[in-house]
Amino acid sequence: MSVLAADIGGTNIRAAVVRNGTIEAELHSRIELGDRNLSEDALIERLTAFFLNILDERDDIVAIGAGFPGFFLGTSGHLIASPNLPNLHQVDLAARLSERLNIPVSIQNDALCAAIGEQQFGAGTGTDSLLHVTLGTGIGGGLILNSAPYTGESGMAMEFGHLRVDHSDHARRCGCGGYGCVEAYASATAITERYFEVAGIRTDTEDIYGRACKGDDDAKSIFESAGSYLGMAIAEAVKLLDIHTVTMSGGLTGAWPLLHPAATESMDDNLIPPLKGKIRVLRSTLNDQAGILGAAALTD
Amino acid sequence: MSVLAADIGGTNIRAAVVRNGTIEAELHSRIELGDRNLSEDALIERLTAFFLNILDERDDIVAIGAGFPGFFLGTSGHLIASPNLPNLHQVDLAARLSERLNIPVSIQNDALCAAIGEQQFGAGTGTDSLLHVTLGTGIGGGLILNSAPYTGESGMAMEFGHLRVDHSDHARRCGCGGYGCVEAYASATAITERYFEVAGIRTDTEDIYGRACKGDDDAKSIFESAGSYLGMAIAEAVKLLDIHTVTMSGGLTGAWPLLHPAATESMDDNLIPPLKGKIRVLRSTLNDQAGILGAAALTD
Repeated sequence: MSVLAADIGGTNIRAAVVRNGTIEAELHSRIELGDRNLSEDALIERLTAFFLNILDERDDIVAIGAGFPGFFLGTSGHLIASPNLPNLHQVDLAARLSERLNIPVSIQNDALCAAIGEQQFGAGTGTDSLLHVTLGTGIGGGLILNSAPYTGESGMAMEFGHLRVDHSDHARRCGCGGYGCVEAYASATAITERYFEVAGIRTDTEDIYGRACKGDDDAKSIFESAGSYLGMAIAEAVKLLDIHTVTMSGGLTGAWPLLHPAATESMDDNLIPPLKGKIRVLRSTLNDQAGILGAAALTD
Repeated sequence: MSVLAADIGGTNIRAAVVRNGTIEAELHSRIELGDRNLSEDALIERLTAFFLNILDERDDIVAIGAGFPGFFLGTSGHLIASPNLPNLHQVDLAARLSERLNIPVSIQNDALCAAIGEQQFGAGTGTDSLLHVTLGTGIGGGLILNSAPYTGESGMAMEFGHLRVDHSDHARRCGCGGYGCVEAYASATAITERYFEVAGIRTDTEDIYGRACKGDDDAKSIFESAGSYLGMAIAEAVKLLDIHTVTMSGGLTGAWPLLHPAATESMDDNLIPPLKGKIRVLRSTLNDQAGILGAAALTD
């Protein structure tokens, strides 16, 4: 049986037909959800139109699973809020779409879908509990505890990017308004900014990594420092949750040869003795597809 | 139906007959488990003798629930290790006692029992998820997530005392060998030590709190600083787990009027905006009885 899986972003939807954990057909589509004033009804209309378009062509699809950038109440598909779409509050997103499309619809937070995908089909296969970290312009992620996606009391679990790794007076300011968050040191935005500060050059992280590989010590040390801060934040999560597998995805994992050794070293430095050396930090094997495959798995 | 509940420490066992969440009769007893060379067989012998003594007098007891200072595999009653009893490794503690006593036995980590007690009968009543912090010579605690005690992959979840609240070069050294752990700032041991450092007087935390109440600014600022560090550590846990209720027990909660305002203020300073003002930090209403009542609830 095939399901329609979607990874819904602000301006793009990536969708795929998935059968037994394998992507059969993939399609990308522009969609305008980026308007901050988007209303609940407009969101439902646009998503309905998008999905109907596909369902009209494929009569083998039995369910829809989707990842969406927002906070959801448990596994109910009820959207509590979406940081970038402030007009959306308490929307029965899955139920409303299901009613319109006449097919079962499951929806969950996009980063949590990536965690589910990674645990079921990617680098986290074989473990019941997983901390998945997404390294992009911001830092987020998803938690799987004892084989169940963990959302927290208000859908806001795993604000990993805002774990604090610097409590000093000169801690860097984060986009959240706070100081010292790991996102302010190790996100793509932070790396770009830190490189500009030391080298006076404004360029993207891929270029900065290229420079690091060619011997630019400033570039190299910024990636190593980012890895080190990531390791500190992972250690805090491990000491709380005693999770032994961590996966990472996102564009920045291209710098894995610099990030990974620094992250594991500082993680171990910050763990209690019985946990040192026991935690695997793995690079995603699915990357972009983790979210889609996780969304498909929501329909199981 | 009555159950026998026990809180097993290194040198003392507190036991009680519990009926429907109410303690009917309480008894304390010295027991020698404090010997670091204690073997598995000796442990089983001593606990068996202790429990048999009570069971012989009470024929209404249908099960035993106990808290024990060690790491347990899920809810199996299988002891993985005990920090203070290094000879114990991979002991089927609940199963072996049950076989000897011919009665169902459930055993779980002692701090997790306190968390269960607090959630079912104490300050955490009415919430499905709870972060319970025990403030004693060390700092520990237990996690309840979606109504289930959470133990982690190797029974070591909720090493709350070792969350890091100072990453600077002058961070205080912790008993775990690391630096900057909240336990190095806010445990009874740390408060005693910090007061000695500034005032040159070695005394207990009750006395230091008494001094603070009488206008000793050094004593007052140490408690407020301890509260502030506790708030930072709580904020990290909240950002990961989106838990809205935190309870605290232990001797140090006697200093609640100084600890609590400092903890909530620094917690809110360290939370992301949507979580600020939403998290309750509550003083235990059960204190010493939380562990016993939680142990009794293991038998449900």
